[in-house]
Amino acid sequence: MAMTGVLRPGFIQIRVLDMPAAIEHYTKRIGLHQVSEGADGRAYLKAADEFDHHSIVLRRADRAGLDLMAFKVREDADLDAFARRVEEYGIAVDAVPAGEQPGVGRRIGFTIPSGHRIELFAHSDASDPRPRVHNPDVWEVEPHGMAARRFDHALVYGPEIEKTLDFFVKVLDFECAERVDMPDGLLAVWLSCGMKAHDIAFVKHPEPGKLHHLSFELENWQAVGHAADVITRFDISVDIGPTRHGITRGQTIYFFDPSGNRCEVFAGGYTYYPDNPTRSWDETQIGKGIFYYERVLNDAFLSVVT
Amino acid sequence: MAMTGVLRPGFIQIRVLDMPAAIEHYTKRIGLHQVSEGADGRAYLKAADEFDHHSIVLRRADRAGLDLMAFKVREDADLDAFARRVEEYGIAVDAVPAGEQPGVGRRIGFTIPSGHRIELFAHSDASDPRPRVHNPDVWEVEPHGMAARRFDHALVYGPEIEKTLDFFVKVLDFECAERVDMPDGLLAVWLSCGMKAHDIAFVKHPEPGKLHHLSFELENWQAVGHAADVITRFDISVDIGPTRHGITRGQTIYFFDPSGNRCEVFAGGYTYYPDNPTRSWDETQIGKGIFYYERVLNDAFLSVVT
Amino acid sequence: MAMTGVLRPGFIQIRVLDMPAAIEHYTKRIGLHQVSEGADGRAYLKAADEFDHHSIVLRRADRAGLDLMAFKVREDADLDAFARRVEEYGIAVDAVPAGEQPGVGRRIGFTIPSGHRIELFAHSDASDPRPRVHNPDVWEVEPHGMAARRFDHALVYGPEIEKTLDFFVKVLDFECAERVDMPDGLLAVWLSCGMKAHDIAFVKHPEPGKLHHLSFELENWQAVGHAADVITRFDISVDIGPTRHGITRGQTIYFFDPSGNRCEVFAGGYTYYPDNPTRSWDETQIGKGIFYYERVLNDAFLSVVT
Amino acid sequence: MAMTGVLRPGFIQIRVLDMPAAIEHYTKRIGLHQVSEGADGRAYLKAADEFDHHSIVLRRADRAGLDLMAFKVREDADLDAFARRVEEYGIAVDAVPAGEQPGVGRRIGFTIPSGHRIELFAHSDASDPRPRVHNPDVWEVEPHGMAARRFDHALVYGPEIEKTLDFFVKVLDFECAERVDMPDGLLAVWLSCGMKAHDIAFVKHPEPGKLHHLSFELENWQAVGHAADVITRFDISVDIGPTRHGITRGQTIYFFDPSGNRCEVFAGGYTYYPDNPTRSWDETQIGKGIFYYERVLNDAFLSVVT
Repeated sequence: MAMTGVLRPGFIQIRVLDMPAAIEHYTKRIGLHQVSEGADGRAYLKAADEFDHHSIVLRRADRAGLDLMAFKVREDADLDAFARRVEEYGIAVDAVPAGEQPGVGRRIGFTIPSGHRIELFAHSDASDPRPRVHNPDVWEVEPHGMAARRFDHALVYGPEIEKTLDFFVKVLDFECAERVDMPDGLLAVWLSCGMKAHDIAFVKHPEPGKLHHLSFELENWQAVGHAADVITRFDISVDIGPTRHGITRGQTIYFFDPSGNRCEVFAGGYTYYPDNPTRSWDETQIGKGIFYYERVLNDAFLSVVT
Repeated sequence: MAMTGVLRPGFIQIRVLDMPAAIEHYTKRIGLHQVSEGADGRAYLKAADEFDHHSIVLRRADRAGLDLMAFKVREDADLDAFARRVEEYGIAVDAVPAGEQPGVGRRIGFTIPSGHRIELFAHSDASDPRPRVHNPDVWEVEPHGMAARRFDHALVYGPEIEKTLDFFVKVLDFECAERVDMPDGLLAVWLSCGMKAHDIAFVKHPEPGKLHHLSFELENWQAVGHAADVITRFDISVDIGPTRHGITRGQTIYFFDPSGNRCEVFAGGYTYYPDNPTRSWDETQIGKGIFYYERVLNDAFLSVVT
Repeated sequence: MAMTGVLRPGFIQIRVLDMPAAIEHYTKRIGLHQVSEGADGRAYLKAADEFDHHSIVLRRADRAGLDLMAFKVREDADLDAFARRVEEYGIAVDAVPAGEQPGVGRRIGFTIPSGHRIELFAHSDASDPRPRVHNPDVWEVEPHGMAARRFDHALVYGPEIEKTLDFFVKVLDFECAERVDMPDGLLAVWLSCGMKAHDIAFVKHPEPGKLHHLSFELENWQAVGHAADVITRFDISVDIGPTRHGITRGQTIYFFDPSGNRCEVFAGGYTYYPDNPTRSWDETQIGKGIFYYERVLNDAFLSVVT
Repeated sequence: MAMTGVLRPGFIQIRVLDMPAAIEHYTKRIGLHQVSEGADGRAYLKAADEFDHHSIVLRRADRAGLDLMAFKVREDADLDAFARRVEEYGIAVDAVPAGEQPGVGRRIGFTIPSGHRIELFAHSDASDPRPRVHNPDVWEVEPHGMAARRFDHALVYGPEIEKTLDFFVKVLDFECAERVDMPDGLLAVWLSCGMKAHDIAFVKHPEPGKLHHLSFELENWQAVGHAADVITRFDISVDIGPTRHGITRGQTIYFFDPSGNRCEVFAGGYTYYPDNPTRSWDETQIGKGIFYYERVLNDAFLSVVT
């Protein structure tokens, strides 16, 4: 099989302070749809162009941030194989039974060196809205808000970046598409499990398990501009953009959800293949790598995380 | 490894009647660069955003059409493994030594049931122009003409579509992203070896080994419109478009090179994953599947091939 | 004053067979808003980016087509001046009292040589939705459907094109931006009262007073593509496009309202100034003039009118 | 005549420190063409989509900045009429003979209260490249660099903004499309002589005759993004953007020519008509007015002028 093992980011579970405000943000503004609500109050959301049951889980809590990020693997047997490989690497694995989230099969979970909880699952029920598969239209439900097409990736902050990179490459079969090496060592890596320039990215940070941003894919730069119009029209707190990343080439804008979690909507970025060389950046051009147009870093972007 | 075996279309070799006219078409109009010229007069071209040595080979001949399409595999050992699988399927395999094309390693080749020659190779030298990998810019060379970013796929016509599908799925590990089933049987299939909605596509046709079109990827719908402006400005023969396909959702325009080979430039199309259901089309909506805006078929599109 | 006399198309009144279907078409699909309903059942619509009370009037009738097109002039006194000039030209003028349409001041009306009723008015109340004028956002109401920004122009068919051109230039101070001259005489003219390549256009046709299309302006080619997606998704009858006109350079798609009136949504087109030369087209390139990409005429486009 | 008197910005003459560097900037990067060089060393440039002889004049000097901005009027007789009105307003007028710049007829000139020299002219020879007028293509010369379509406007800084506004409205028949009123009085005005949201704009500043930026129009937001790519690729000093203005709604990026003159390329902005209300901004939303996405002012933008 040409694509095996980890296929893609499946869903992310984040903590929000005010559930109705969060739901309005992710559905009306970013353009997702709410699929269901859990018995424990968690909200399950998705983009209309995704088949799986949900890709965003909102959990009410007193502190914003990331609970976990789950990747979908191709086959159920992959879960056992990865569990073995993770444990052989020296990291403990636990199991989450099917149904802990609506529509999602059994998961395995573990904490990576950067302090983040990662889970793997092989099964998701489909849910509506989703693309039709017989004589389909380009879309069934007219896009709204920022018209996000999918949950795409997350950038997370934590310690032990070298070890985290080693784990993702050796155990989960990811590739390193880009990296930033500073005079004092590896600062950041962008990792791919398929043909996207990144499915998850890590930046070195003293505190473990922090979330820098979760990211949604848009159609193109025109959509990024429309997202910027939406952000100002509805008084959403903006971080930076519209701009482009030198790293991944993504065209982007960053803003905050009502709980302070940073969101990105982006478009473009090159198609990555595993035989591509890893792109590398150094301290002389890191500004251009992060913000290709401004060519200087912005302190808030580097330090504000949830 | 998450992506293994066949990675992507590597290059296509087509026949042209007038070499200087063909080179002008593919470089000045479509926006490629000529990398080298073979001792036997073949011309080697590429997009500036591709790493490999070339993706288009032009060979002068008295009849236009397709010589072969070659896919890049991940590792040299894959060539032997695939040679074995192809032969076990009952198809003869031959070997092409490294250097038969400049910069390309050894290849294996075989003729599939539709009558087309397919080759596999694992090694390509890099060539310029190509993306920089240390502190890179978004592009090094200013895009020109239609600004094609890569050779993307080909759609070919021939008999034995069911058998060809079976071969690609069982032997080469492709997935069937979309299919058209008519009352008299399978008409067409779109096959993926990665996350694109198609890397090669087949339409049932009595004559074997025919080329419907070779396709280049553009940035977005804006670029498709600019390509249309280029086509009319330089009196290039147009087939149809700008339009969109229901199948793959690609935004597209078709036109002919000076030898009569059909070219496509396109943008968009959904991201495909191997756990996605195969989309299917039937005779009631085939018009919309092929040309989403016109919703009717066009005879020339169905019958003119080289 | 730099712009005086006729400023722009103010509103168009068209006949529709089925009022609810028409309202759905123009509001949900084209993206307008209904402002009010007249006591006589007429429906008044506008784009959210227009200040004036309405720009589209729908009247239920047994035959589709055009009742009248009204231009807004700068000052009330212009109405008397134009009434005099029209009568001096030999065309009878009648008066329509303020309030015949909600929010619209007194109008003068007359029938031009092509058989169409043209009206002029100087006053319109504002209506909501409309742009704010103190610390405004880019838009107040999120765009929907095709996101039409304004009623832009109409193309009408009728006899006596030379005389109609003469009238518009001599009496209403329009400029001729483009013209098509065929071996048997003037075929068509595009007329401007400001900086748009056309505010009204005429094509020679034996029957008087016919409507070819009414046109709405969109933001750009991306929006034309989205309009095309809307057209297919909601099974709207399409005429031609997305394509571009050589004449005016507009990027366009044509489709029909449920009563059979042809609509256009378009973007782009050059900025016109009255010191620009008139662009002219002849029979050798008329195909390219009308449909820049297809470069051939389409019979239905030339003959189907309401 | 519907448009009379002042039609549009005709050309701007700016001072540059290094002529070859300036020519490279305006031709290769912004996308203009050099038309001719004067005997006195001035360089004359234009966009390929402009009919008139030139729109940009570069003069070598030891200090960057603005020599003059010239508006084209509709008729030669307008020059005498405006000369009279300017003098009646109490401002001295001088005459510049035809031929002082290649291809440009006689001009009248005067210094406005803000300290800037304004000129009017009625005649310009055409020059190549320019649009064809018989069976024209959408463009003759393939666009390059940022693909500027025209010199569009300038924003200038100086004292006496109220008086300058009064002069432009009463004497030159401009309209005030937008204004910013701060607690200590009028800060800025955007003035239109046609259907653009601004043809010239003024910001209050103690020093007279300063240039904030000269601006070129692009096709759309996609082109603004491409301009940003060009700016970084060629290490052009950027000021701010891509962003949008609340005022005029223009989508924009600012950067500097090699002499330190600020340039803007922009797209969009609403269509203005003289019956539109003046949009007004106050100190509570001035940040959003200037930079709609950032919603805060940037000191350099307010203080750096040439």
